[in-house]
Amino acid sequence: MKALEEKILSEGKILPGNILKVGSFLNQQIDVEFLMQMGEEAARLFADAGVTRVLTVEASGIAIAVGVAAAMHVPAVFAKKHQTSNLSGDVYRSVVHSYTHNTDYTIVVPCDYIRPGDKVLLADDFLANGQALNGLIDIVGQAGAEVAGALIAIEKGFQGGGDKLREKGIRVESLALIDSMDDTGIVFRR
Amino acid sequence: MKALEEKILSEGKILPGNILKVGSFLNQQIDVEFLMQMGEEAARLFADAGVTRVLTVEASGIAIAVGVAAAMHVPAVFAKKHQTSNLSGDVYRSVVHSYTHNTDYTIVVPCDYIRPGDKVLLADDFLANGQALNGLIDIVGQAGAEVAGALIAIEKGFQGGGDKLREKGIRVESLALIDSMDDTGIVFRR
Repeated sequence: MKALEEKILSEGKILPGNILKVGSFLNQQIDVEFLMQMGEEAARLFADAGVTRVLTVEASGIAIAVGVAAAMHVPAVFAKKHQTSNLSGDVYRSVVHSYTHNTDYTIVVPCDYIRPGDKVLLADDFLANGQALNGLIDIVGQAGAEVAGALIAIEKGFQGGGDKLREKGIRVESLALIDSMDDTGIVFRR
Repeated sequence: MKALEEKILSEGKILPGNILKVGSFLNQQIDVEFLMQMGEEAARLFADAGVTRVLTVEASGIAIAVGVAAAMHVPAVFAKKHQTSNLSGDVYRSVVHSYTHNTDYTIVVPCDYIRPGDKVLLADDFLANGQALNGLIDIVGQAGAEVAGALIAIEKGFQGGGDKLREKGIRVESLALIDSMDDTGIVFRR
């Protein structure tokens, strides 16, 4: 999505540790008009996928999930993060490793919010190693539902998570896909 | 907002400890069509307030803030929660007490995202004791900006936070205002 690439080039900041800061429009300030445009693009890309639900992880995924769900006219669901896996109730859960913080956390979705037969579009603001998406895919499987694909705002292609998911047969669509970034600039995949 | 009251009555669940569970449509599953209707109602209520930004706290406030900001055509900003107040960088911060968890946390907004002269509409899914809103009001004041008001999806009027803010002169508009709730039912304020 050309407009997103341009926004990354004009407003994004590269910080040490492969961090791309886009807080000025994607999180934690959200350019909502632009968010809705990204949602429309997502709806166009997955128009034929029969999506019944959009699923993300709190907190930074919520805005993009709402934008995508609004354009697709389906509900959005977000998994909550917990430090413990010791949880009660009728929930699906999966353990996710965070490379950024070198720790594990558990993501949790009540069973009521994903049903067998659902076609679930995963959504997130960033895709790097793909750990969070793998957790969501695990949960969709537990629910007896189907993964329709993954819609990512910004994929850091050089961290490999997206291509591993594609090799597994998951349809991953990233609105901007970065192949490399450093002090000299950002290179997008064509 | 009659439609929200009806949705609370049909889908909400009252749990021990004055908890009203509306996870099936407001969090953590979001009925996005309905969210956008709530946003339109917020835009109608604050049409003459000159709002330039919507401000909330992660994570459960993000969806309603996006819905409101979409209808008002302004950016949404969310404060991040931290367990420590030992933070660096150009940020505004305020300490918030959580009665639910009996602990303090710090909410943080980068200085770039609220500017002097901004008219800031606070938004949240719930208002009970008003601690989170007081923290946001503190941050808006630090930024030299103005509080245009607060837009709440569901106010628990019996916990008093909303009326205390109104007494201070803050315009608080709640789309549903609950005066009492127990096993026998929910009473909305007229």
